[in-house]
Amino acid sequence: MFDLKAYLNDVRAPVDQLLQHYLSAQSPATRVSHAMTYSVMAGGKRLRPVLCIAAAETVGGSREAVLPLACALEFIHTYSLIHDDLPAMDNDDKRRGKPTCHVQFDEATAILAGDALLTLAFEILAAAGTRCASEDQSRWLLAITQIASAAGFRGMIEGQMRDMAFEGTVISTVELESLHRLKTGKMIEISVGSGALVSGASTRQQQLLQVYAQNIGLAFQVVDDILNVKGDPERLGKATGTDRIRGKNTYPSLLGLSGAEALAGQLVNNALKVLDAFDNGADCLRAIARYVIERNR
Amino acid sequence: MFDLKAYLNDVRAPVDQLLQHYLSAQSPATRVSHAMTYSVMAGGKRLRPVLCIAAAETVGGSREAVLPLACALEFIHTYSLIHDDLPAMDNDDKRRGKPTCHVQFDEATAILAGDALLTLAFEILAAAGTRCASEDQSRWLLAITQIASAAGFRGMIEGQMRDMAFEGTVISTVELESLHRLKTGKMIEISVGSGALVSGASTRQQQLLQVYAQNIGLAFQVVDDILNVKGDPERLGKATGTDRIRGKNTYPSLLGLSGAEALAGQLVNNALKVLDAFDNGADCLRAIARYVIERNR
Repeated sequence: MFDLKAYLNDVRAPVDQLLQHYLSAQSPATRVSHAMTYSVMAGGKRLRPVLCIAAAETVGGSREAVLPLACALEFIHTYSLIHDDLPAMDNDDKRRGKPTCHVQFDEATAILAGDALLTLAFEILAAAGTRCASEDQSRWLLAITQIASAAGFRGMIEGQMRDMAFEGTVISTVELESLHRLKTGKMIEISVGSGALVSGASTRQQQLLQVYAQNIGLAFQVVDDILNVKGDPERLGKATGTDRIRGKNTYPSLLGLSGAEALAGQLVNNALKVLDAFDNGADCLRAIARYVIERNR
Repeated sequence: MFDLKAYLNDVRAPVDQLLQHYLSAQSPATRVSHAMTYSVMAGGKRLRPVLCIAAAETVGGSREAVLPLACALEFIHTYSLIHDDLPAMDNDDKRRGKPTCHVQFDEATAILAGDALLTLAFEILAAAGTRCASEDQSRWLLAITQIASAAGFRGMIEGQMRDMAFEGTVISTVELESLHRLKTGKMIEISVGSGALVSGASTRQQQLLQVYAQNIGLAFQVVDDILNVKGDPERLGKATGTDRIRGKNTYPSLLGLSGAEALAGQLVNNALKVLDAFDNGADCLRAIARYVIERNR
């Protein structure tokens, strides 16, 4: 039986250490670097780094080689949270039980801290590419291209635009799926995809892992929606019932609670099915897929 | 005699065409892509693309090969202007005689349009790297690393932080120079440096061009300050005297008008001097250096 908890601890420790190392590169610390560190170190599941590393290890890659990539993905994720929380956007005062970046610092600092995290992510990615063997450099360049595309105006940024535009209006499940695929799905997909790509995955392996990641990404979102209805606020570390108050479109609101639960189960099964093509090197990805459902219990 | 006006027209046309091409990649256009296009196409000197291309041609590189790089630099520049203009930052309503992005659209759209331009820049850079010969890919990766570093929290972003922090307090010329080097200098330096680097420049050529770019970058800023005192608002397309009203630290305020003019002349001479090591392939860079002073007349 694969011990996911031990694996997560094992993976998160070097990720957190390297994140801290990158943030300390600005010495002495400035107001912006303080704000960056505050938001990056505020906690979080490190889902994207974990998926990236698990995908790398699934195709026989080394953890050390993809650690910079894993950190870059987390920096991009944190930048998106800081900007989404701004008064002009979702106007959130708290995240993970702590004041959001613009509340703790100020709006200008929060905007620039987000900008800086996004920029730092690409600096780390390109620097990691320069250090690797020349025959692997084209894989790094392709990974950077795909990450930027997933994070950009045809990906995550368009997702945030639609999320704001849709608030308070009822949309279809097709529109909701498309929204989530843009807002969070593509970055989760590329977390898996880039980890595999720079680790030398074959085209076939990349295709299978893409299907895995698409299903997992959406499943995470569906379960997030479910937990907002029936989760335990204390265990989750955040308030529940907030989606309904805000008039947000969610899977439970469109499919009912049991419909949403059935969908989540189906998505996780799809993800597990494509992993049949892999040996027990993919056990970490299998365990992550099962965890998506289990955190619902 | 080198015809700078013809050269600028010759360079700007393909740059503008390619900028437009990249922005149209999101089809149909979205609100964010409209905002991106609005700000990128609002005009501007295209100084960074011109410097990048001139540097490439100076070391014998091809214009076509660096066009994507030139466009990426302009996207990063435009993103920085959009974010700097935001209400939480410099709170500017107009730029180049037109409403700023957040006035024309809204704050959330402006924040995301800036984010998207920054992200698109790195997508373009990495994609250009994947397309080039494998022996040149390490140069592209290094260029991306250096561009991200110049734009990031140890470069342009820290410059904007200090610019806001210093407003209304008197600083020394040393602090002012350090501020400008961070806020605009490093990106001008890397515009020249990256154009030369990916075009195969030798280490010696890169060093000389770096000195050129450092002097030109600061000279541009000094002349900007001078024009804000004694320029013709109609010819400049923007109001003058605004620095004094805002209590901004400028070279004329610290050195007097004639002291600032002497400094600008000295910086341009420094820039021209290092170009002595190059043949007439560097005439475009020489002409740009002279233009810095001439626009003051």
